[in-house]
Amino acid sequence: MKNHILIVGAGLCGTLLAIRMAQRGYRVSLHEKRPDMRSTDIAAGRSINLALSNRGLKALRLAGLEKDIIKECIPMNGRMLHFETGELRLSKYSGREGEYINSVSRGGLNISLINKAEAMDNINIVFNSNCLSVDLEKASAVFQDADTKKKTEVNADIVIGTDGAGSAVRRSLMARTTQLLFNYSQDFLRHGYKELSIPPTEDGRYRIEKNALHIWPRGTYMIIALPNLDGSFTVTMFNPYDGENGFNALDTKPKVQAFFEEKFADILPHAPTLLEDYFANPTGNLGTIKCYPWQAFGKTLIMGDAAHAIVPFYGQGMNASFEDIVVFDEVLDQHEGNWEKVFTTFQDIRAKDTNAIADLAVDNFYEMRDGVTNPDFIKKRSLEMQLEQNFPEYYSKYSLVTFNENLSYSQAKEKGRKQDEFLLDFCANNPIENIDLKEVFQMIKKELS
Amino acid sequence: MKNHILIVGAGLCGTLLAIRMAQRGYRVSLHEKRPDMRSTDIAAGRSINLALSNRGLKALRLAGLEKDIIKECIPMNGRMLHFETGELRLSKYSGREGEYINSVSRGGLNISLINKAEAMDNINIVFNSNCLSVDLEKASAVFQDADTKKKTEVNADIVIGTDGAGSAVRRSLMARTTQLLFNYSQDFLRHGYKELSIPPTEDGRYRIEKNALHIWPRGTYMIIALPNLDGSFTVTMFNPYDGENGFNALDTKPKVQAFFEEKFADILPHAPTLLEDYFANPTGNLGTIKCYPWQAFGKTLIMGDAAHAIVPFYGQGMNASFEDIVVFDEVLDQHEGNWEKVFTTFQDIRAKDTNAIADLAVDNFYEMRDGVTNPDFIKKRSLEMQLEQNFPEYYSKYSLVTFNENLSYSQAKEKGRKQDEFLLDFCANNPIENIDLKEVFQMIKKELS
Repeated sequence: MKNHILIVGAGLCGTLLAIRMAQRGYRVSLHEKRPDMRSTDIAAGRSINLALSNRGLKALRLAGLEKDIIKECIPMNGRMLHFETGELRLSKYSGREGEYINSVSRGGLNISLINKAEAMDNINIVFNSNCLSVDLEKASAVFQDADTKKKTEVNADIVIGTDGAGSAVRRSLMARTTQLLFNYSQDFLRHGYKELSIPPTEDGRYRIEKNALHIWPRGTYMIIALPNLDGSFTVTMFNPYDGENGFNALDTKPKVQAFFEEKFADILPHAPTLLEDYFANPTGNLGTIKCYPWQAFGKTLIMGDAAHAIVPFYGQGMNASFEDIVVFDEVLDQHEGNWEKVFTTFQDIRAKDTNAIADLAVDNFYEMRDGVTNPDFIKKRSLEMQLEQNFPEYYSKYSLVTFNENLSYSQAKEKGRKQDEFLLDFCANNPIENIDLKEVFQMIKKELS
Repeated sequence: MKNHILIVGAGLCGTLLAIRMAQRGYRVSLHEKRPDMRSTDIAAGRSINLALSNRGLKALRLAGLEKDIIKECIPMNGRMLHFETGELRLSKYSGREGEYINSVSRGGLNISLINKAEAMDNINIVFNSNCLSVDLEKASAVFQDADTKKKTEVNADIVIGTDGAGSAVRRSLMARTTQLLFNYSQDFLRHGYKELSIPPTEDGRYRIEKNALHIWPRGTYMIIALPNLDGSFTVTMFNPYDGENGFNALDTKPKVQAFFEEKFADILPHAPTLLEDYFANPTGNLGTIKCYPWQAFGKTLIMGDAAHAIVPFYGQGMNASFEDIVVFDEVLDQHEGNWEKVFTTFQDIRAKDTNAIADLAVDNFYEMRDGVTNPDFIKKRSLEMQLEQNFPEYYSKYSLVTFNENLSYSQAKEKGRKQDEFLLDFCANNPIENIDLKEVFQMIKKELS
């Protein structure tokens, strides 16, 4: 029998990690603070629907789960833009066939993974088990049962914290003021988000295009909607906290109604429960967390959102966490048996990539809000579609990040930003009708070489 | 009687703030975690001596304390560089007369301020009073007595946290995960520091030049020494933690002795207690802390190191904290009576400047270690001396930060970096003997305009 691994947090990353480690022959204890989500509804108006794409699918494939999970997904071929004028425009994610992202319910996916994990002999799942602290050198942690309040110490060979943006394991790393030199940053956007919904029609059909990620871009304000299997859409509004129509100001039903009538009149017919949703659901923060190191003493490691929480605007949060598992598995192939080497190699390979996607996700917040209505940006997207259709080896920045899982995030960021700079400059100074696409493609290749 | 102000932390910033607020007529409660430093030696091998300069002096002047404090100071006219060859070179801080910095003991200065504060009727100082938490909205805090362990709640009109880099007040801001959107970063250098000492000669004289800040630059390693009134020097060594001669590796007396013989042989004759000091004193971390906002609800504010801890390489940590008080006092002149307005105005003016000095201080770490032995840098310093001697309106970056207290840190950073870039480029491409200084000065002015 191999080592005993204690995993703190049975969200998406922790549960998939548990499955993969169990497949490799380890004994896994998986502790989760919340109750079993199969018997309790815990999302409760807090979910931004997820967009599962290539990097996440690669991790599911590694664990042999891709085919099962894809059944729960709805392909989204592009962004359906809803302009204030009522005009609709589909901006495809890729000019190539078969490149799309997948709308999936966070809760549904998590339950599927929990079911898989529970079926494995060498995984022991404990719910309602709140991690109070980790002994970094001993690889042990103290948990408190949410019901009985009883405290238990669990000892293992290593501890991996996959307990999300508010990680208790990371808190134990941060509390260590000697030796680790623990760098940390948390950085919030001045915008928050709130979940709303678009139900199915009475006969169970989708009220708006099923196979798209819908965006209502309104400068400072933005709403998005992702399809669910039951015909509904999970809607998320992004508003600043401050200012005339900020979340802090929109505090009565008449004010919210007036705001939607002014800015999002085209949503109102589809959202009969808008006002109830608005006041029933909490307003969430949007923050980026970076830190380093991710490991201590070859005994304790953090992974996923615990190590690198990002804003949701590239649809890469879950994909990045799942990709952690792919990278961790590759490092294990090389250094299995020496945890310190595994942990330090993993963090050194991975932190620069998760920093890169964190930055790209913040960029995309501004691009989604403002860029999609900018004429040069629209020209650029159109030109990139043509390039992708005609030159299969051409990838836009979005495609590099989303559909090119063999390129790291940091490489995608560097290459993508260079391309964007060139193309935006080109589009600002040239018409894009009847141009020699091959010449443009050669120019980009030269720019990148 | 005006409002009651609760100040948490009676270090340099908190005590000077208490004095100034009492002078303005407020009732002040000043709580300090540590025992009264007048009866206990609490520095205990942890002090980097301080360099008091114009910005700090301006704050002392505001409180009418400059003349008293300056008596405890030793002027340092420049950096005395000790090269590995044994060569000595004085690099003056300014080409103008009367521009120097002042070596002062942290403990001595703090005691002087405590004595002043204690003599005022409307300041109540409580030692051994450890802040456990702050109720941000209520402007109250819970303290625990270090001896009796008794907990007391103190209520005030406002709370100001001047409790240093490990601030408990800031922890209460950070714990508030809603509303505040509290941005925070802590960033450690991979170097640590350790206090050593050079005692006076047997007849009480200084063993090395009194009126200088001594530097032994050795690439990755660096030692500095600042004079004390008793003829001794407080010495600080800066080493990386890792690597062949890092703090982690230098763990036996023979190893430390061999390291000094190889790298710092010229210090050995002056440091008879080197090995005792090395193993008696702790190794400290060097970190930068930035955060925002500094205030909550117009009731709670942080200031000084609690809001902006910086590395010591520009000699500006205390000066920046004292300058906070000058700026706060100016904002009070405008908005007294409206704490929320005072706090938000203060943080919005001040945070960009403390961010600027934080960045400059990290820059100077690399400049002090490496730059002072770089030929172009040496030419540049020499050229700048000539410029300052001939054109009183010319200020080097160092002088802008240190001697030009009417320019903000962010302005000094911007102007200073531009000048440096120009001058380093100039020195790399031109001889500086027999040049037309006036022409160079005109070129710089043009560069900046």
